[in-house]
Amino acid sequence: MNVIVLKFGGTSVADINKINNVANIVEKQLNNNKLIVVLSAMAGVTNQLQKYIDEIKSEENLENDLILTSGENVTIGLLSSILKQRNIKSIPLLGWQLPIITDENHIKAKILNIDKKRIYKFFEKFDVLVLAGFQGINLNGNITSLGRGGSDTTAVALAAAVDAERCDIYTDVEGVFSSDPNIVSKAKKINKLAFEEMLEMSSTGAKVLHTRSVELAMKNNLVLQVLSSITKKSGTFIIDEKKLIEKEIVSGVSYSKNESKITISGIPDKPGISAQIFGLLADGNINVDMIVQNISQDGVSANITFTVPNSEINIATKILEENLKNIKYDSLKTDKNVSKISVVGMGMMSQSGVAKKMFKTLANKSINILAISTSEIKISVLIDEKFTKTAVQSLHEAYNLEK
Amino acid sequence: MNVIVLKFGGTSVADINKINNVANIVEKQLNNNKLIVVLSAMAGVTNQLQKYIDEIKSEENLENDLILTSGENVTIGLLSSILKQRNIKSIPLLGWQLPIITDENHIKAKILNIDKKRIYKFFEKFDVLVLAGFQGINLNGNITSLGRGGSDTTAVALAAAVDAERCDIYTDVEGVFSSDPNIVSKAKKINKLAFEEMLEMSSTGAKVLHTRSVELAMKNNLVLQVLSSITKKSGTFIIDEKKLIEKEIVSGVSYSKNESKITISGIPDKPGISAQIFGLLADGNINVDMIVQNISQDGVSANITFTVPNSEINIATKILEENLKNIKYDSLKTDKNVSKISVVGMGMMSQSGVAKKMFKTLANKSINILAISTSEIKISVLIDEKFTKTAVQSLHEAYNLEK
Repeated sequence: MNVIVLKFGGTSVADINKINNVANIVEKQLNNNKLIVVLSAMAGVTNQLQKYIDEIKSEENLENDLILTSGENVTIGLLSSILKQRNIKSIPLLGWQLPIITDENHIKAKILNIDKKRIYKFFEKFDVLVLAGFQGINLNGNITSLGRGGSDTTAVALAAAVDAERCDIYTDVEGVFSSDPNIVSKAKKINKLAFEEMLEMSSTGAKVLHTRSVELAMKNNLVLQVLSSITKKSGTFIIDEKKLIEKEIVSGVSYSKNESKITISGIPDKPGISAQIFGLLADGNINVDMIVQNISQDGVSANITFTVPNSEINIATKILEENLKNIKYDSLKTDKNVSKISVVGMGMMSQSGVAKKMFKTLANKSINILAISTSEIKISVLIDEKFTKTAVQSLHEAYNLEK
Repeated sequence: MNVIVLKFGGTSVADINKINNVANIVEKQLNNNKLIVVLSAMAGVTNQLQKYIDEIKSEENLENDLILTSGENVTIGLLSSILKQRNIKSIPLLGWQLPIITDENHIKAKILNIDKKRIYKFFEKFDVLVLAGFQGINLNGNITSLGRGGSDTTAVALAAAVDAERCDIYTDVEGVFSSDPNIVSKAKKINKLAFEEMLEMSSTGAKVLHTRSVELAMKNNLVLQVLSSITKKSGTFIIDEKKLIEKEIVSGVSYSKNESKITISGIPDKPGISAQIFGLLADGNINVDMIVQNISQDGVSANITFTVPNSEINIATKILEENLKNIKYDSLKTDKNVSKISVVGMGMMSQSGVAKKMFKTLANKSINILAISTSEIKISVLIDEKFTKTAVQSLHEAYNLEK
């Protein structure tokens, strides 16, 4: 039995016309396949629900998940009804009905188990299972959610559970681009991308896919395709690195304005201080990213600069200030007006000079680099936020990505 | 353990302010009681969902119920979160989570079972159970709905299951009125009403309570109160007839414009013809209400006039036309511009002259009566729709209901 998983985001199911368009795609993909179709709520609906939650300042995550997962009832019901009217054997299923079992972490639950046998049982009677994305149920019988964008992860988890031939992620763009087309007019669609590259691009700011969905696809070696629900063109295939014939040195330039910089000055320059600082932050579940440490010229005190997500800057500052006595630093400065610019590419591993070109390009534009972090296939730099556009555009040109 | 059931309709939970108001009422009722709070979706939400269903012309009832029941996730989540913020031990529960087991009839499911032990189990940990109204789950694991207005029935069924002290139905009016205040400015709130009267008033057009909820309360001899969620006044108590000290001859005047008249002329006047016609309609699940049969002067053919709900007129006509050959009638006429006016009162059973006063009052206003139906505590007449307001006002005055 061939199973294909199709996932449609909120903009692809935003109204009845668009849901009819989704039904057309489903009908075309059916042939002799069995399909699992994962849907988000109509665009804007989950935002409205989040507004209610913000209005009452609700930190009750069991309740918040119950509220946030309600929009999918509507889209899966409508699509399944349209499919049945076309004589397609379809059934709508909420997370608890399959079920998609998750851990107990509301708002950001992780999928623990999807029973393959249950899916095959449904396939005995139905050709299309229309699943609510983004939601699951924990072992206490409460509804959980996988976090915003979590429908991608639902789709990939289902594809992994049934060893699907392919997992197609339909969205409102034609695929993954070499950079953000809103900033770089010459950005082009990438045809093939390695999982590792997609992962680095997602985690450095490209908002095409939920990061966890890429990790899960890589772990299960699934073929992922990102494509448009409007144009009929093929999209970006995200595949195993070994299947990439030509490895681009740089595949894309991504950016994130969602970073804050913290600088701690006048720390005693002795062993164990860094471990103490980052240990405290780790205990507080703070995600520290880029780190730069400078020893001062007197050789006695040091400065440490690092970045955290904007959403965690207040907690991080609070933790550090509460531990002022233990760390004995002089001052603590924070700066939200920074931006992380990243270049990502599998070919970097075997090619030198990529970093040099990056630094030179930014220097030519008089952009100062505040911090650097690298992986085997990525170089990220932290810069003043106001240079974001110039930096992304000039790097896209420097690596010749518009070709 | 004292359990009180409180039910709030869509207008009482229409926005965050109103949900906060509901939380105030819940807090005040708590004392040492355990509470079950049943909520509808925010006013307007279920209508919007119904619009989507109408737009795709969905007759897939499994899907329609899934769509229509989604609005309650939001209201029960928000109220439970607000209650928790006030340190009240609360839990939101969807129909399938309690569970409320129904039969398999989607769109108009009947409740089969509510497990009292499960409710008491929840009460071990929580003081307030916030239940989604209008929904249940059938034994196939699919979500069902009880029909529009069904949250009243959810509330009464839960009250019956736990033998609640009281079931309070909060709404946007102060109780049950002697007639529609929009038409009769002098209509007054009724303090006490017998189940039978409420039942007749509901089924003849008063839209205060879901008819099935009244039947269920009567069967279980529960005390029902209809009251406003805004004013602090006591509402209308609906109680056992035996507890009514003073039985009003006429308690209220109700009306319904939701009626269509069908007249079949030139039917052979022989035995079994009526049985044949109404048998066909019964097979088609058509609810026939008032029936008038006239034998023509030639003694050979007859006319039959009867009413059906507006929503069933097309199906009824279709069934009759398809059976033209078997019934052999001359003509079939339909008229949607009719209105049913009813006077209801327990005292009618022991008092004569009520009908006479009704007919005389209408005659004085030159209103022609097209059909009549009666029960022990109700007289209904069918009139031209354009006289609705005049008829209701003059009857309200004739029976001195503004006193």
